Amino acid sequence: MLKVGIIGAGGYAGATLINLLLRHPEAAIVWLMSEDAHQGKKIADLYPHLTGQLNLACQTLADLDKNLSSIDLVFLALPHGIAINYVPRIIDAGKRVVDLGADYRFADNAVFKKWYGLEHATEKYLKQAVFGLPELYRAEIKKTKLVGNPGCYPTAAILGAAPLVKHGLVELDSLIVDAKSGVSGAGRGVSLKAHFCERNEGLEAYAVTTHRHMGEIEYQISRISGGQINVTFVPHLTPMTRGILATIYAKVKSQKSKVKNEELTQLYKDFYKGEPFVRVFDDKLPNTKFVAGTNYCDIGVQYNEATGQVIVISAIDNLVKGAAGQAVQNMNLLCGFPETTALQQLAVYP
Amino acid sequence: MLKVGIIGAGGYAGATLINLLLRHPEAAIVWLMSEDAHQGKKIADLYPHLTGQLNLACQTLADLDKNLSSIDLVFLALPHGIAINYVPRIIDAGKRVVDLGADYRFADNAVFKKWYGLEHATEKYLKQAVFGLPELYRAEIKKTKLVGNPGCYPTAAILGAAPLVKHGLVELDSLIVDAKSGVSGAGRGVSLKAHFCERNEGLEAYAVTTHRHMGEIEYQISRISGGQINVTFVPHLTPMTRGILATIYAKVKSQKSKVKNEELTQLYKDFYKGEPFVRVFDDKLPNTKFVAGTNYCDIGVQYNEATGQVIVISAIDNLVKGAAGQAVQNMNLLCGFPETTALQQLAVYP
Amino acid sequence: MLKVGIIGAGGYAGATLINLLLRHPEAAIVWLMSEDAHQGKKIADLYPHLTGQLNLACQTLADLDKNLSSIDLVFLALPHGIAINYVPRIIDAGKRVVDLGADYRFADNAVFKKWYGLEHATEKYLKQAVFGLPELYRAEIKKTKLVGNPGCYPTAAILGAAPLVKHGLVELDSLIVDAKSGVSGAGRGVSLKAHFCERNEGLEAYAVTTHRHMGEIEYQISRISGGQINVTFVPHLTPMTRGILATIYAKVKSQKSKVKNEELTQLYKDFYKGEPFVRVFDDKLPNTKFVAGTNYCDIGVQYNEATGQVIVISAIDNLVKGAAGQAVQNMNLLCGFPETTALQQLAVYP
Amino acid sequence: MLKVGIIGAGGYAGATLINLLLRHPEAAIVWLMSEDAHQGKKIADLYPHLTGQLNLACQTLADLDKNLSSIDLVFLALPHGIAINYVPRIIDAGKRVVDLGADYRFADNAVFKKWYGLEHATEKYLKQAVFGLPELYRAEIKKTKLVGNPGCYPTAAILGAAPLVKHGLVELDSLIVDAKSGVSGAGRGVSLKAHFCERNEGLEAYAVTTHRHMGEIEYQISRISGGQINVTFVPHLTPMTRGILATIYAKVKSQKSKVKNEELTQLYKDFYKGEPFVRVFDDKLPNTKFVAGTNYCDIGVQYNEATGQVIVISAIDNLVKGAAGQAVQNMNLLCGFPETTALQQLAVYP
Repeated sequence: MLKVGIIGAGGYAGATLINLLLRHPEAAIVWLMSEDAHQGKKIADLYPHLTGQLNLACQTLADLDKNLSSIDLVFLALPHGIAINYVPRIIDAGKRVVDLGADYRFADNAVFKKWYGLEHATEKYLKQAVFGLPELYRAEIKKTKLVGNPGCYPTAAILGAAPLVKHGLVELDSLIVDAKSGVSGAGRGVSLKAHFCERNEGLEAYAVTTHRHMGEIEYQISRISGGQINVTFVPHLTPMTRGILATIYAKVKSQKSKVKNEELTQLYKDFYKGEPFVRVFDDKLPNTKFVAGTNYCDIGVQYNEATGQVIVISAIDNLVKGAAGQAVQNMNLLCGFPETTALQQLAVYP
Repeated sequence: MLKVGIIGAGGYAGATLINLLLRHPEAAIVWLMSEDAHQGKKIADLYPHLTGQLNLACQTLADLDKNLSSIDLVFLALPHGIAINYVPRIIDAGKRVVDLGADYRFADNAVFKKWYGLEHATEKYLKQAVFGLPELYRAEIKKTKLVGNPGCYPTAAILGAAPLVKHGLVELDSLIVDAKSGVSGAGRGVSLKAHFCERNEGLEAYAVTTHRHMGEIEYQISRISGGQINVTFVPHLTPMTRGILATIYAKVKSQKSKVKNEELTQLYKDFYKGEPFVRVFDDKLPNTKFVAGTNYCDIGVQYNEATGQVIVISAIDNLVKGAAGQAVQNMNLLCGFPETTALQQLAVYP
Repeated sequence: MLKVGIIGAGGYAGATLINLLLRHPEAAIVWLMSEDAHQGKKIADLYPHLTGQLNLACQTLADLDKNLSSIDLVFLALPHGIAINYVPRIIDAGKRVVDLGADYRFADNAVFKKWYGLEHATEKYLKQAVFGLPELYRAEIKKTKLVGNPGCYPTAAILGAAPLVKHGLVELDSLIVDAKSGVSGAGRGVSLKAHFCERNEGLEAYAVTTHRHMGEIEYQISRISGGQINVTFVPHLTPMTRGILATIYAKVKSQKSKVKNEELTQLYKDFYKGEPFVRVFDDKLPNTKFVAGTNYCDIGVQYNEATGQVIVISAIDNLVKGAAGQAVQNMNLLCGFPETTALQQLAVYP
Repeated sequence: MLKVGIIGAGGYAGATLINLLLRHPEAAIVWLMSEDAHQGKKIADLYPHLTGQLNLACQTLADLDKNLSSIDLVFLALPHGIAINYVPRIIDAGKRVVDLGADYRFADNAVFKKWYGLEHATEKYLKQAVFGLPELYRAEIKKTKLVGNPGCYPTAAILGAAPLVKHGLVELDSLIVDAKSGVSGAGRGVSLKAHFCERNEGLEAYAVTTHRHMGEIEYQISRISGGQINVTFVPHLTPMTRGILATIYAKVKSQKSKVKNEELTQLYKDFYKGEPFVRVFDDKLPNTKFVAGTNYCDIGVQYNEATGQVIVISAIDNLVKGAAGQAVQNMNLLCGFPETTALQQLAVYP
């Protein structure tokens, strides 16, 4: 049994990790850490749905060092800029790390600094980090000890855009990602933005030109294309708990008259052939409800002949494929378990 | 592997059965039947979340006879009055049956007729039927071939009230069940009642003195008490998809000053000791969200000293413990599988 | 034009007051006060829906004295225990007051202290206060200068129960109020309880034997009945923004066989004859959606013959009839305006 | 008093018309017509929130001729293709018409035919019809007797894009409208798409390249630009009742470095100067909640410098500014009433 510690267990990503790991036949949760205010609190008091399932109390990050020897792998689900302070010593202790935050998603410290205003004290660990999107970087993930788990919006955007970009099918400067997220993407922290009465029946765009995930999307799309790409990314907050639907627009290059829906769909099917967690739809369109609670990314592709726009729609559960599920997928890869272990849930429908 | 057929696969209970059975290590779905309009339709077209998971098309009930030999057990999830016409021949063919409808929940044909206006052509099969509430009738379920799976409201109400009734702690004619249900309880059929815009922000009582589940609750509570009990039952439709919360009121007999919260809670804990799917809360109260997608029934008990009222709150997922989950639990009992097989999901929280 | 000041303008009740008063032809909002953190903030920045409608910035309570001379009437929408400190000087300045908080709802200081743990420094003002439920105390309201505006739950509960209690039709110790509220009842303050993801799909009871509105309901029902009544009151939080539905249970006295639905309904119709804001339904049941945004209290009555229980269902918008609308209704009465002025909105349906 | 008849009173647009007209000081509803199934039904039975407000029963279209003499103006809120059969005789009878359907939105019969597959028997009436978007065609509306009231998506899209297009600021072939709608946009008819359980927590695109409102948007944008424009339009269904948020993308022409947020915002403010129902936000972004129940269109503009994309966000209530409110605004213009009469509601917030 792989012994696992979770830092940031009090948030929604942490709670989702717990749910998944409790049903993982090869991993056991050994300890939980959370913010200071949770110290000593039983996880089932923070999350009553765990009553009778996990009898652990939360420790704080101050307890990290004395707890390192008891585990093999650590998940960190923390706001950006905090993991930097802890990951080095975890790696130095010979443990594996899956960081669900932003700190290890950029190989280039300058780009990280541009978007997050922070610098890595040492680039040594950054260089070991692999961007944890298995569909693109499976081989590298298997070989590393430190995974920077992708952000939720980037997961939906990159999986949606990658085949177009890789095949050079579209004008790269035309890429637009109009993303719609459930409220859980903002975490469990209290705020007016997350207040039920402010969100219910309320749909709004936010951070229209400034969202940090734009940096992550641009960085990864640039990597795939081999160029330096800017992407228009507009996130929206929608009145639902879970899910991201990304509607991606891109203008096809010149020869647009020849493009057909079926060919585009086939191109996506070929690109994701054999992938256990990407479903390319033929004649249906993705819906957040079809992936809720699952590790799937569902994709549909359509072509608007009159305007030459390809429209790709991708849907994920922001807390599963967009966070904890993908993190467990990465753990499975890191540790040599079958990749889908503990990730085969279907959507609880309706 | 147990070979299973599902009749009524197109409804929400049917879809939930599919979800659960697809992850059951000892059962395999062999065929699906649904209403005529679904004939020949792939289940993944009716329920796209099943894409890539189950490649079966729906047959109709006209295909039943020729399909009986290929299975060991049949689930029926049909409106009341229809199962009557098919269950006898399934039983006669030596197969086991779990009927999620109302037709086999009453041992007494007269009571069934009073509430449903229908008569069983022959009482022979009715007599074999066991009311499928494992917490009360586990031994009988294990010995039968025909289970009448409880209704959703009755499951929450009976599990909530049973300890009080069994211990003779309350005035039986004072029992009130104020139940709040999500919309999925009304099924997938289209209706103005189920229209998003009519339900969102809308909370209403319905069938205040006439709901058929009142008959089922009265019948079962009477059985437990040994008397003839009438229960006040008021169901409410609330703006959510899943879940039932039942708030149960009952006046304690005379010696009320002695009753304490802790004793009541202990009494419930003792009553449900060892039950895998009942959680009695000490210092929290049940919430539909804690049981969503799970087979749990969560219970909390409080005592209002000034009025002598015991208030019991029970929460279930109407489609799992209130339908398909309990049906699988009954299948496990019927077939000698560990009772919790395929039923250990945690709530997808939040 | 009546000049009006609003204290507590930043909360939902305050915002609803603004909405109503902006359309009142005989009243003008002169100033707004809110918590310190809002000092100097424009109301349209706190509530962007007011953009272009009201160009006032929030002051704080420290600014009260210097602002008293500019107004005729003050609304206070504050947490309990705060109004006590300000109302006396407003009254002494010769101004009228409608207090939406709990401080002036009890004529009896001892009862107030029991439920709120606070004492009025002087009972002088308490004695002038009238409980602002126009359907019961219209004459007194017209004659006073200080109104204690009822709580949201009590408004629904008292209007629902009053006819039964007044007519001595039911056993008073059998009264149960099972109330379901939208989240806005908890105010605009941030908390985990109000988090969208914690409330969506979540239904739970809370404060089962301890809610302060139980004290208010008992106090007022006792007043109506002339006795000392204890009421079982269980509030529930439901996944919607606005609305309260109260389901009220009461056992009829002995001669229950004679009671009929139609007679009960007629009794309610007679009791509320001529009331502009109470609608007694014949053959429909109340729904929070029918009263959303309105000052109506809709009522339906049913009788369960088998159990002798009368079931009364009342629905209000907790922020309108349960708070700001009723406050404006009281202002209209205090000031001699037609009672329905600015209160004739229909539900924004759906 | 203007005497008004409403055809299609049973739908959500019809019900919203009733709500607005009941508070209109210069108009009176004389009769209602709805689908055959509603014949003889009281409107308060179809819409209980109208109890005590309007005591009219529904007639059917078969009753039209005999009812024409009693009114001055008719609103039609019907599925496309039906109004064609009735409008000519209403106009011939000398009455005014505001048609909320699609039949009179296109001056060009060929375009109408392309998108709706229908032909106008006679173009005579089509030629009299004015597209009822007062912000663009106020003068024409005042002079006609027949208004084709804009669709909900087109209202949000055209008001959002018009200033950019009129000023020739953007590449017209780059226009993308990503629109998100509440469920009420699909009407009150029952369907699986409108089922609460299918919509709650479900977000999906639909009719990605085929929605008829794309034709209306293209037709009107072309008119404004003077060219022949194709627009990429992708509508999405979101889990809320009311509201449309349109996120509009357009690439600025060459000199993009000079564009600034403030200038764009000012350009919009100038364009909509004096408009009573358009609010251009400076430093906030539109939210469907801010316009719910109102006739406002809120607009925010942002510029992504790195990609040269202007991003315009517009929000309306699909049933008010997107249907019944705009229809009343048009009636006010047709009849010489102040344009904002009966349309000054604020959002019922929260």
